[in-house]
Amino acid sequence: MSIKTVGLDADDTLWHNEKTFREAEQYFVQLLGSCADKEIIESTLFLTIARNLGLYGYGFKSFTLSMIETASHVYNEAIPSSKMKEIISLGQSLMDKPVNLIGGVVEVLEALHKNYRLLLISKGDLVEQGRKLEKSGLKSYFDAIEIVSYKDKTVYEELLKRNRVNKNEFAMVGNSLKSDVLPALEAGAFAVYIPYDITWVHEMADEPDDNGRYFKVEKLSDLPELLKTINRKS
Amino acid sequence: MSIKTVGLDADDTLWHNEKTFREAEQYFVQLLGSCADKEIIESTLFLTIARNLGLYGYGFKSFTLSMIETASHVYNEAIPSSKMKEIISLGQSLMDKPVNLIGGVVEVLEALHKNYRLLLISKGDLVEQGRKLEKSGLKSYFDAIEIVSYKDKTVYEELLKRNRVNKNEFAMVGNSLKSDVLPALEAGAFAVYIPYDITWVHEMADEPDDNGRYFKVEKLSDLPELLKTINRKS
Ligand SMILES: [Mg+2]
Ligand SMILES: [Mg+2]
Repeated sequence: MSIKTVGLDADDTLWHNEKTFREAEQYFVQLLGSCADKEIIESTLFLTIARNLGLYGYGFKSFTLSMIETASHVYNEAIPSSKMKEIISLGQSLMDKPVNLIGGVVEVLEALHKNYRLLLISKGDLVEQGRKLEKSGLKSYFDAIEIVSYKDKTVYEELLKRNRVNKNEFAMVGNSLKSDVLPALEAGAFAVYIPYDITWVHEMADEPDDNGRYFKVEKLSDLPELLKTINRKS
Repeated sequence: MSIKTVGLDADDTLWHNEKTFREAEQYFVQLLGSCADKEIIESTLFLTIARNLGLYGYGFKSFTLSMIETASHVYNEAIPSSKMKEIISLGQSLMDKPVNLIGGVVEVLEALHKNYRLLLISKGDLVEQGRKLEKSGLKSYFDAIEIVSYKDKTVYEELLKRNRVNKNEFAMVGNSLKSDVLPALEAGAFAVYIPYDITWVHEMADEPDDNGRYFKVEKLSDLPELLKTINRKS
C-alpha cells in the first residue's frame, strides 16, 4: 500500500487567491464608507455571503452578487448608479488579475508528476477556475482536472471512483481543513494540510486527530519529501 | 462501426429552461418599466449579456449580474434599493423553480440506458446544473456527468478522451446547433438536433449540410428509433 495518486487543491495551495478577495472586500467597504459604518458594512457582507453560499456556491460571481445585495441593504433608499457600476467593475476585476503562483509550485509539480498521477481538485466557479488554470501554465502537469461545486466525503468518493483511484493509494493536499483534509480523510484517503497565511472564515475547521493518514507540512515544497517518507514507511 | 455512447444535453433537451429565463426577462423589463422604454431596457440587457458572456459564462448568476448592470445603466442617477432587492430575488427565484421535464424523457432514458452508455453533457453553472440534475431525478440513468463552461470542438475531444469514447461510436444529442451539433460534428462524432420551441439568440446557428453524421428529429421520443436506424445502416 503506497500513495500513487495525489490530489491537489488550487486556490491558496497552488496559487494565491484569498488575498485578492480580502483586498476586494476592503475596497468595497471603502466604496460604501460614506453611507454607513465600516463595521456595519463588513458584518452585512459577511452575513449575506454566508446566507447565499448554499444557493450561489463559490467564486467571483457569487461574491459580486453578495456585495451588490449588501449595498441594497446599506443604502436605505437608493444606490447611486455610479457606485453600482464600481461594484460590478470590482467584481469583474477579480477575473482580470494575473495568477500568482505559490513559491516553488513549478518545481514541486515537476518532481511529483514523474512519480505520481496528479489530479487537480478545485472547488468553485467553472469559468473562473478554468481561466485561472489556463493562466497558471500548470495544466499540463495534471492527469485530470476536477472542478467541483463543493468538497465533501461523497464528492471525493465519486471522484476517486470516476478516476479509478483506490482510496488507500490517494492523498489529498490543500490549505483547507474543511474542504481538502477532513472529507478526504472521511473518504478513507490520506490528507496533507498545508496552512495558508489567511483562512476564509467560511472554511475554518479544527485539525483532525492523528489517525496515521493525516499529515501537515509548512509549505508546498515540503510535499515531495513527505510523500516519499509515507511511502517508505508503508 | 455503430453508436455505443450517447451524449445528451440537458437544458431544453431533457428539461425546460429557456422559457424560465425569458419569463424572468419579461418580469425584469416590467420592473424597470417606470424608468425607461421597454425597447431600451431590452436592448441594454441584450447587449450587456452579450458583452459579459465570455467573462461570466452561462447560468443564473451571470444572468442576474447582467440584469443588475442593465439597471445601473437604465437608472441614470440612482437605483431604488427596493428595485435592486427585487432583481436579486428574481435571479434567486430561478434556482427555486421545479424542474419541468421534456415530454417522454423518462421513457426515452429508460430505453436508451439499456443499450447505450449515456453521458450528460451540459453547459453552464456548476451549482445550477448540479441542482437541476438532482431535482430532475434523472441522474441514475447516466454513466457520467460532464458539466462544462462552454462546448466547442476541443471540449468534446477532451471529454471523449476522458471517458474513453471513440468519436465514431458517439452521438451528441441536443437542442443547440451551436453548442451540441456543430462542435460535435467537428470533433468527428455523430450529432442529433432536436429543435426546441425557442432558441436563445446567443445560441443561434445555421443547420449543417448533410454529411452522413448529422440527423434531426422532431422530438426526444423519436431518438431511440433514429439511433437504431443509424446502427442498422452502418
Ligand atoms: Mg484552497
Ligand atoms: Mg440546451
